[in-house]
Amino acid sequence: MGGVSTVGDRVDRVPKQDRSRATRQRLLEAAVACLAEHGWAGSTVSVVAERAGVSRGAAQHHFPTREDLFTAAVEYVAEERSTALRDLFPDGAADDRHAVVSALVDLYTGPLFRAALHLWVAASNEDQLRPRVTELEARVGRETHRIAVDLLDADETRPGVRETVQGLLDMARGLGLANLLTDDTARRERVVAQWTGLLGEVLG
Amino acid sequence: MGGVSTVGDRVDRVPKQDRSRATRQRLLEAAVACLAEHGWAGSTVSVVAERAGVSRGAAQHHFPTREDLFTAAVEYVAEERSTALRDLFPDGAADDRHAVVSALVDLYTGPLFRAALHLWVAASNEDQLRPRVTELEARVGRETHRIAVDLLDADETRPGVRETVQGLLDMARGLGLANLLTDDTARRERVVAQWTGLLGEVLG
Repeated sequence: MGGVSTVGDRVDRVPKQDRSRATRQRLLEAAVACLAEHGWAGSTVSVVAERAGVSRGAAQHHFPTREDLFTAAVEYVAEERSTALRDLFPDGAADDRHAVVSALVDLYTGPLFRAALHLWVAASNEDQLRPRVTELEARVGRETHRIAVDLLDADETRPGVRETVQGLLDMARGLGLANLLTDDTARRERVVAQWTGLLGEVLG
Repeated sequence: MGGVSTVGDRVDRVPKQDRSRATRQRLLEAAVACLAEHGWAGSTVSVVAERAGVSRGAAQHHFPTREDLFTAAVEYVAEERSTALRDLFPDGAADDRHAVVSALVDLYTGPLFRAALHLWVAASNEDQLRPRVTELEARVGRETHRIAVDLLDADETRPGVRETVQGLLDMARGLGLANLLTDDTARRERVVAQWTGLLGEVLG
């Protein structure tokens, strides 16, 4: 009987975990979309729960506070994008440096960047949010830097290389900001082409 | 009698214009401070009027709508900063390129950038604000580009020079974003030093 019940438990437990994971994921994706579209002021747990088709109680079971939900959401999508970026260059360091720079810059356009920007800007004025977002930003920033170094095959033991890669990612963030209100694609592509060339002078 | 009354009018009128200009300026400065501290959601004409020590009626006489007040405020402070930047290098193109790059990057730190960022981000979600801020951003952006070209003595007829200066200003904006939640000064200075060197390769 013990054996049967264990099997039964396991059978029950696995789909339940799956359901729970799927619910969590739906909430995270709805949270990022909500933040990108309505900003921090318009983004509450209730709004996200409704958008995700989940009860408010279930949402709060997963994310007890508003801060929990939105920082987790931005982190989740940032991780997804990091994985997608690595998958784009499965062999690691890429021969086509221009493609790598373009892909890095693309991290800072689109709904995730908009959502993250809303969260950053809200955190700059909200004491409850600031430490969480600061820590999240540092973690995501380190991971993005690591990916950039790998894909650009940058040797950071050489003087200036680390700061060159950092400046490139700062430029990518600034280009994201320039794309917030208007479609800046054409100008961005010219800047990316030119700065990829400059990068070549340092990285060899 | 006509002559006397004209003189009287003029004497009355000039201080009145001065008072009006001073009121306007107080409102603009209070609006930028308010936006930087409380964000768009916490920034209304009433809050700014109170902060400036001006009646709500007087504030609305100067700025009929909330959008009028805040776009005018960001534009006013941006113009002040452009003037201050030009005054820093009164002879135009500066020999010390590092000083110019540092001064350009400094445009994107501090309360004005915070205020502008709140306005941009709010504009990305608010239809009433978006066209105003888009137009403002374009105008301020063109002026900043012009100052950068002048002070760096950049010859934009040479291929790649224009895009290099644009990328530099994008980087400056991205550095401003990185400074939003934490004091990023030390890292920023290293990035600026490195990219000033790279800039030299293009500008000669």
